[in-house]
Amino acid sequence: MENLYVIKIGGNIVDDPTLLTSCLQAFAQVKGHAILIHGGGKLATSLATSMGVEQKMVDGRRITDEATLKIVTMVYAGYINKNIVAQLQAKGVDAIGLTGADGNLIKAHQRINAGIDFGFVGDIDTINTDLLIELLSKNRRLVIAPITHDGKGQLLNTNADTIAQSIATALSGTYQVHLIYGFEKEGVLMEIQDPSSIVLRMDRPLYDSLKAQKIIVDGMIPKLDNAFKALEHGVQSVIIGKAEKMNELINGTAGTTIQL
Amino acid sequence: MENLYVIKIGGNIVDDPTLLTSCLQAFAQVKGHAILIHGGGKLATSLATSMGVEQKMVDGRRITDEATLKIVTMVYAGYINKNIVAQLQAKGVDAIGLTGADGNLIKAHQRINAGIDFGFVGDIDTINTDLLIELLSKNRRLVIAPITHDGKGQLLNTNADTIAQSIATALSGTYQVHLIYGFEKEGVLMEIQDPSSIVLRMDRPLYDSLKAQKIIVDGMIPKLDNAFKALEHGVQSVIIGKAEKMNELINGTAGTTIQL
Repeated sequence: MENLYVIKIGGNIVDDPTLLTSCLQAFAQVKGHAILIHGGGKLATSLATSMGVEQKMVDGRRITDEATLKIVTMVYAGYINKNIVAQLQAKGVDAIGLTGADGNLIKAHQRINAGIDFGFVGDIDTINTDLLIELLSKNRRLVIAPITHDGKGQLLNTNADTIAQSIATALSGTYQVHLIYGFEKEGVLMEIQDPSSIVLRMDRPLYDSLKAQKIIVDGMIPKLDNAFKALEHGVQSVIIGKAEKMNELINGTAGTTIQL
Repeated sequence: MENLYVIKIGGNIVDDPTLLTSCLQAFAQVKGHAILIHGGGKLATSLATSMGVEQKMVDGRRITDEATLKIVTMVYAGYINKNIVAQLQAKGVDAIGLTGADGNLIKAHQRINAGIDFGFVGDIDTINTDLLIELLSKNRRLVIAPITHDGKGQLLNTNADTIAQSIATALSGTYQVHLIYGFEKEGVLMEIQDPSSIVLRMDRPLYDSLKAQKIIVDGMIPKLDNAFKALEHGVQSVIIGKAEKMNELINGTAGTTIQL
């Protein structure tokens, strides 16, 4: 099977032009097929502020009301996605930018939650693997914005980490899939402020133990849950680490390697 | 050769949800291949106002400065394009939304004009017909936002009428191409306020005569120049008419038919 790299970069990478350019350079140099999934970043928040749209938070989680959905669709699917595509084209990479609505790539349903109404947030139902394989087969690279649709005309805001995991998993029968999460830390850290405390390899028992000890908390939990889910469903390798070191993450010489 | 309908809808159609839905319904029912090119509409202007970005006009023409480019990229490539794609998917049409940067679909250069600096406005150099043919061959329909790129990482704001003409022309060797411009008037009118004064068929001599008499003025001139250019380069038919009557425009029973 051919190699496929599914690379997710977070919002803080998108916010930093120098860092974004260096990540795109690494993405351009990948040997094999490659898909980039990008997060949002501060632009959506600053646009909301300048438009007078209040960010609604419930229990520390953002609610995607209609005005916020409009903003994230504009920022993620428009500004960020198309600027990344144009930058990749300038590097000689034949990139195509997509949302989950395009070609019915990612069908989702609006999240049902008895406790909190998250608004227009989508949980993924299906990935159109035929479309991905068809586009990849022409040596194109894909850039995916974290916007999905419900098949009834409604766009939905969807977690980019989960999109990366779902796409990696869906393609694991066709390619040797390597899933990489690039973010602001060196990897999984024993001491959150100390980059040298990186856990080089983490398996499920270690993860459970570190969660129980509250060493792994907050946003790392869904990220690592996604990592283990991917491995359990056929993804070859998952690495989580600092986006600045994208080349090393791709080569497997930086970050935390997640294993079963 | 198979039929291909290249349909352009202007900004005022995009601004009117009922009218947009009826145009998309007609687009969904087209027999043959179909490409939709959409304009911008008032959302970009209202977003600019709410963000405090001043619209710069020189000699009645809008200047695309950096802030304006950011806004049109968000609105055209993000909000409008993806909502149209999601609506078409809901109608069972396998639509993919693209800008000129995606797959290097439309390469352009920043307009050089000794008199006025239009800013980030692109004039088209090349259309990637291979990509269009490849995507159309899978019975997909394409939705194109009027944003192009220069191949060096710069996005550019580009006239949607001209994109429609360029794509229609570029594909005229492969398909029987029918180019339709849907806008707010019945077609070319002898009296601008009187819909019944429609010119049913217009050839080049009549166009030249009506231009000389100042009956055809302003925005109709570049639109008709595009129409004649398309016909001169192999496009089968060009019809200009009221977007409300999209079905009739497609069937050739409404609007002004342009002929050589």
